Parts: sequence; structure tokens; C-alpha cells
Amino acid sequence: MRATTIHAPRDIRVEEFPDPQIQRPTDAIVKVVAGCVCGSDLWPYRGENPIQEGSTIGHECVGVVEEVGADVEAFRPGDFVVVPFCHCDNTCAHCQAGAQSACVNLGMTNSGQAEYARVVQADGSLVATDGTPDPALIPSLLALTDVMPTGWHAAVSAGVTEGGSVVVVGDGAVGLCGVLAASVMGAETIIAMSRHQSRQELATAFGATHVVAERGREGAAAVKEITGGVGADAVLECVGTDDSMGTAFAVARPGSMVGFVGVPHGVELPVGRMFQKNVGLRGGMAPVRRYLPELLDLVVSGRIDPGRVFDLTLPLEEAPEAYRAMDERRAIKVLLQP
Amino acid sequence: MRATTIHAPRDIRVEEFPDPQIQRPTDAIVKVVAGCVCGSDLWPYRGENPIQEGSTIGHECVGVVEEVGADVEAFRPGDFVVVPFCHCDNTCAHCQAGAQSACVNLGMTNSGQAEYARVVQADGSLVATDGTPDPALIPSLLALTDVMPTGWHAAVSAGVTEGGSVVVVGDGAVGLCGVLAASVMGAETIIAMSRHQSRQELATAFGATHVVAERGREGAAAVKEITGGVGADAVLECVGTDDSMGTAFAVARPGSMVGFVGVPHGVELPVGRMFQKNVGLRGGMAPVRRYLPELLDLVVSGRIDPGRVFDLTLPLEEAPEAYRAMDERRAIKVLLQP
Repeated sequence: MRATTIHAPRDIRVEEFPDPQIQRPTDAIVKVVAGCVCGSDLWPYRGENPIQEGSTIGHECVGVVEEVGADVEAFRPGDFVVVPFCHCDNTCAHCQAGAQSACVNLGMTNSGQAEYARVVQADGSLVATDGTPDPALIPSLLALTDVMPTGWHAAVSAGVTEGGSVVVVGDGAVGLCGVLAASVMGAETIIAMSRHQSRQELATAFGATHVVAERGREGAAAVKEITGGVGADAVLECVGTDDSMGTAFAVARPGSMVGFVGVPHGVELPVGRMFQKNVGLRGGMAPVRRYLPELLDLVVSGRIDPGRVFDLTLPLEEAPEAYRAMDERRAIKVLLQP
Repeated sequence: MRATTIHAPRDIRVEEFPDPQIQRPTDAIVKVVAGCVCGSDLWPYRGENPIQEGSTIGHECVGVVEEVGADVEAFRPGDFVVVPFCHCDNTCAHCQAGAQSACVNLGMTNSGQAEYARVVQADGSLVATDGTPDPALIPSLLALTDVMPTGWHAAVSAGVTEGGSVVVVGDGAVGLCGVLAASVMGAETIIAMSRHQSRQELATAFGATHVVAERGREGAAAVKEITGGVGADAVLECVGTDDSMGTAFAVARPGSMVGFVGVPHGVELPVGRMFQKNVGLRGGMAPVRRYLPELLDLVVSGRIDPGRVFDLTLPLEEAPEAYRAMDERRAIKVLLQP
């Protein structure tokens, strides 16, 4: 198949790669209809995560079931499916407790930017649409594989409540989906921290009531002013750096919670400040399958359109340009069509 | 007045000290009936916190109102009161949100091991008993000034639920009160991690269903076995060291929460592990006043008897011995009578 691979920092290629095969009877192979580049793919792209030279990259895709293992009961070739980036059996104790991203049979999509992807634990992981979806829905369905449930997880973890105030740190696709999640959950004040006009506009379209362009102390001061000097009832940390985490704690009101979903890179948590202000931290890799049925309903009913985070669509062959566009922040998120 | 003072590590004295005075119209002076030594008093005692030479020490006491400032409306001389170690106005935005330990007018009892103590924000802080209490109730009322609400706060922060499993890390008075809190909240499995027989016995009396004497990896393995390989639904961290925090995260099931109330000393939070396992952290200084009415009802009705943590009672003059007994773990907690 044609697949996107990474060879070294900033060395993304689209090349021939062996087709994924059914390895266990619980596996399925999905023919990718749409894949995309994730903000977290930029960590290895920028050389900040280790790279296995020549390996495939990409963990988000939707598509059509091509083949299933002998034990797969719920899906058949031809089904259109949303593929959570983390695969789970959805039956183990962790899954039953809503922690599907810690499933004892956890797997990951690893060729989402390619023609085919293997899904382990197909029965537990996949969610099918009702027939073949309208092509116009594809971007929003694709957003359900990672960024939308991740933004949703940040909001759930932060304890967003109806009528409350929320700050979203990070204006990437996940942060923007966090704004959308807070809006669906009924937050009254939603403050998006963003310096980029196109992202500010999408944040507003997704429900942000305020945009704060300042960072650091000035940004925190602006949030304090909007929240009547008190700080926010819930904070969504959607970046993963020490700076963004610091901002998150600086704007959280005492007794509140920071929901964090940005993979931490060089973060040192301010435990003394957390103790002193009684501000908690909760989050991690999103249990996508937990939220997927509800979010799929919201997409299909037209209530949310998280696919708007895709502001650039390219053919798979142009994956290197997709990475460049996201790295240079020319695009929020790039959809790739095999 | 006679007051306990600290001059240097392990240099505790009982000596003459100026009586506290009404400084603001919202203050009250309380004549101490019973005070006590806190585990956190051992940090300066052991030289691990800075010491202001010759200052009074002690933040827990119950007693009788001696004098009130001009603006105090709810209390009069002669009222028997429980004095939360942290004083609050109970009206600011933080207090109204249940974060009384972050009150904008926060104060602290600072001569609880003495004959008199000053309370700032008397109206917001104090809770009176219904008449003069039975002397047999004094230890449990005294426990309500700090250790019991602190253990309760750990349980609330960790999200203890009816029927769930709980691990309590730390067998000091706060940890033991955490066991009691989990029991009142209806947890089905309560695992106390303790190596000391007298503490194990009290933990069991307070509702622990299991005692794990091992520490570190062995302790975590023992908890895993008790919880069917899954880990605990809620973990109470009641010590504040890096080791105890590590144990707390090691025994927490994915998706659960560690409630922490031990003042952190040298703690580096394992942010990567927290992310990977979706285990949150929440807690801090207990908002004592928030919990006090409910806990007072539980004490007066005889449903809880947190005063059992006091296994040694000494006259105020023997405060130095009280510190030694606690430092050497000969006593769980020492009550001092002026």
C-alpha cells in the first residue's frame, strides 16, 4: 500500500509499505477513506520524540471494513467505521470503569495516514455509521477518532458544568474541540486563549465567549478580570508544555480542576501551588470509545461540526506538505485523502 | 499567658507569652480548653521547615469564647466553640464555592497549644456546640479542628463512593481519620497501609477492612491482589512525601483520583504516569469550615469518634514531651490541657 512514513525529524515520506494483515482473530483491516495529521505527530516530526526510522505514522482514520478476523462478530466488510486512535476490548475492568485508554488489551492505530490500517479489538473499538455517510460528514467523523473526544475528555476531566466558566489553554484542533465540548456542556463563559486570528474565529464559532490573546502573567490577569477576580471554574490544558500547564494553574480558581490532554513534554507540576490553592489535575489519553456513541449522535444530528478544524485537505501523496503546513501553523489540521 | 513556643529544631518550650488581643473588629479570643500537636508541627520540629525563633506553635484547639470584636455577631463570651485551624469569612467567592481554605481573608490559629488563641473572621470560622459539651466529647471535638476534616477532605477529593474500594496511605491521625471518612461514606473495601500495630488496630476500629504492612512495590502488589488486580477506586495520600505519593499512584486504578492532604515535602509528581493511567490528583489544605457542621453532627450523635486518635493526654506544661512522643511515634496524637 501507499503509506506515510517518518525517517528522521522533518523527513516524512509517502512510499510503498507492506499491507497490514489480520494477526489475531479479534483484528480488522480498514480501508482508509480519510486520515489526518495530529498535533502529537509534530513531536517526532520536530525531533522531540524518538523515531523508529521508516515506520508508518498516523493514528486517526475513518474508512470501510476490508477484512475481519475469525472472532469479530459486530462488523463485516463494507461497514463504514470510525476508528478510535486507541483500541480497546471495551469489556475489561478498566473499560467498564470508563478508562478505555488503559484497556488491558490496548492497541493503537499506526497507519492512519495510509491506504489501510489494522485495528486490534475490532468489536470493542469500532463504531459504525448508519450506512455510508454523506461525504460532507467525513471531516466531522474523522474528528471523532481523536481530537473531538480528546477535547471532550479535557472538559469532562476538568468538571465543566452548565453555567460555569471555562478557560481553554491551547488553540490547536484539540483546544478548539475543547471549546466546542464546553459549549455543548452548557458553560456560560468560555475563554479561549489564542493569538491566531483564524483560530480565534473558529473558537468563537465553536462557542467561545471571550478570546484572550495575551500569554503568561498578562494572559492570567486578563482571565482573572473576565472571571470577576476569581479565576475559572474549569480549565482545559490542551498543549502539554510546562508553560501551558503553568498558565492553566494560574487561571484556575481555588477548588477547581485542570483537565489535561496534551501529552506532557517537560512538565513539572507545581505541587505546592496545587496544594495551596486546592486545584486538582486530571486527564490523560482520552478513552475515545467511551464518548464515541454520544459524540457520533451529536455529529449525525448536526448539533456539532468538529470537522471544521480541518482547514486544509490534501491527497495522501502530499503528506510531507501537510506536516509542514501544521508545523508552520499555516493550517490548524490537515485531512489526507488516500 | 502560658504558651508553647519553638526556638529551634527539637527546642520546644512552654513559657510566658503576651496574651493575644483583639486586633480587628471581626476577631475573637478563645480560652483554650484543649489543644494538641499536629503531624505537620513535626516538620519544623525536625528542622524541615523554617522556624521563627520563639514564636508560638499549634493550630488546633477548642474552647470558650473570651472576648469578641465589635463586628462579631454570631458569638458571645461563654460560647463553647470548635476553632477550624484555618479561619475564613465564609462569604467570599472562594468560600461560597467550598474552598474556604483559600478565603480572601484567610487566617490561621497560631497559639493552639496555649491558654488563649486569636481567631480572625470569628463569624465565618467558628462553630458553637449546643451548650457546654460533655467532657468525654472534647477529644472528638478537638479532632474536628483539623485531622478529621482533613481526612474527610482527602476522601472527598479522591471521590470515595458507596461500595467502592479505597486505599489510605499514611497511618498518622489524618490517615486514620481518612479511614473513618471512607467508612462513613460507605466504601466497601478500605485498605489501610500501616506497619504499626496500635495504628492498625485503630484503623480497623475505624472501618478498615484490610491492613497492608508492606511498603513500596510489595505494598502496591498486596493492594493489587486485594482489588482483583485492578487497583483502588480512590486513594487517600495522607503523608506528603515523594515515597508516599509514589505509592498512592502505584495503587490507583486507571481513571481514579488520588486525594492528597499531606503538605508536600520534596514531592515530584509523576505527570507521565498520571497521563498514561488517567489518574488525577486533587486536594490540599482542608476547607474545614465547609465540612464542620456535618462532622459536628456526626460527633454529637455518636456516629463517629475521631477523638480516639488521641492516645496520650498531657498537661500543657509537658508540650516538649508531647512532641517527643509523636516524633518517636510512641503516640499517634497528643492532647494538651492548659
